Amino acid sequence: MSEIICTVDIVLLTLKEECLHVALLRREHEPFKGVLALPGGYIHAEEDADTHAAAVRTLQAKTGIASPYLEQLATFSGPGRDPRGWSISISYYALVPENLIGEAGHPHVELLPVERLKGLPFDHLQIVEAAVSRVRNKSSYSSLPVYLCGEAFTLPRLQAVYEAVLGEPVNKVSFRRKIDELGILEPIEGALETGKANRPAQLYRLRKEYRDRLSLTDRALNAR
Amino acid sequence: MSEIICTVDIVLLTLKEECLHVALLRREHEPFKGVLALPGGYIHAEEDADTHAAAVRTLQAKTGIASPYLEQLATFSGPGRDPRGWSISISYYALVPENLIGEAGHPHVELLPVERLKGLPFDHLQIVEAAVSRVRNKSSYSSLPVYLCGEAFTLPRLQAVYEAVLGEPVNKVSFRRKIDELGILEPIEGALETGKANRPAQLYRLRKEYRDRLSLTDRALNAR
Repeated sequence: MSEIICTVDIVLLTLKEECLHVALLRREHEPFKGVLALPGGYIHAEEDADTHAAAVRTLQAKTGIASPYLEQLATFSGPGRDPRGWSISISYYALVPENLIGEAGHPHVELLPVERLKGLPFDHLQIVEAAVSRVRNKSSYSSLPVYLCGEAFTLPRLQAVYEAVLGEPVNKVSFRRKIDELGILEPIEGALETGKANRPAQLYRLRKEYRDRLSLTDRALNAR
Repeated sequence: MSEIICTVDIVLLTLKEECLHVALLRREHEPFKGVLALPGGYIHAEEDADTHAAAVRTLQAKTGIASPYLEQLATFSGPGRDPRGWSISISYYALVPENLIGEAGHPHVELLPVERLKGLPFDHLQIVEAAVSRVRNKSSYSSLPVYLCGEAFTLPRLQAVYEAVLGEPVNKVSFRRKIDELGILEPIEGALETGKANRPAQLYRLRKEYRDRLSLTDRALNAR
């Protein structure tokens, strides 16, 4: 049995200027030294409880971020994807609000729009595409996009986030009904968003029990 | 970097007596020699193009079956799941009609109902549960259950297969509409099922372009 290189890679997504962006880092070592790539690294069998723990550790070490939502995407593999040899990447995706990336204070994290990526090393472009596709599909029937909002947000803001992720406008009435069905939000008592042209809007937050798990519905938000 | 054991495991599902069954084999070697477990094996870096190819090769070698539909489920990992050391299992699931398993002629394949499994070695029970959950979810908005039918089937038979997988009755009118939407079937010209008490029913088959890929809809068949 020849040795297989075992790594994890993380697709950290955020919303910037209403477009999905992915966090990339310049590689510190060969291969592809100095080239922008997904944060990733070897599994450490001596310390990681499983590949999820390896992904949490790697994301924290490389970006300073502890994402409340980190899910396994898929495993990519083969002899050609890494010049060092036959390799496996168990890939994960995470969604965070943009301010969390800035506050983590890792100055080398670069945010690139997912629609205009090209020429990533390894098969990282394919991994990002798979993550974006998964997030778009899953967003239409789940609370997933809420992780892109900050701690407090108005319903119009949340709708704009869903629309940005889905890449299409969403009917306001169906959106409100869907959010009700998901049962994930609670109003923040006495908190209104002011300072905009419109009348003050109620601020909401994610209910505690949904801070690290999704709520699902069985009908897509944008079902035809 | 300590060595990590890299394997694939396959959850081969079929419908027997209208219940989902999983194909198990008695292990030929330690650990757990003689115990029923999922068909699986090491990745062969010198010959496998990727983990999917490893799963195809392993399934064929252990059961004689070349499944038209084999999809990656998830990767299971950790220091405790295999007594030999820190291990990764990239798991796949496949769906085939029961007669294909018999025709493959591997007498050691045993079919056990997924609802009454217990005490599988490694974390194979957890892998089977994840596969069944994925198949149930995916079946409600895709053509997945068709792989459990033989080559030719009537619409009432296909409905019964969907109902068996979903574990609940399905309204006939919504079922027919959903199947129309999926656009996966074509009538077999001049082929009727006879010999039953009812009047002869048209036989259908999967259209060529869907024999190895799913058709999806955006509203679940059993949406409330």
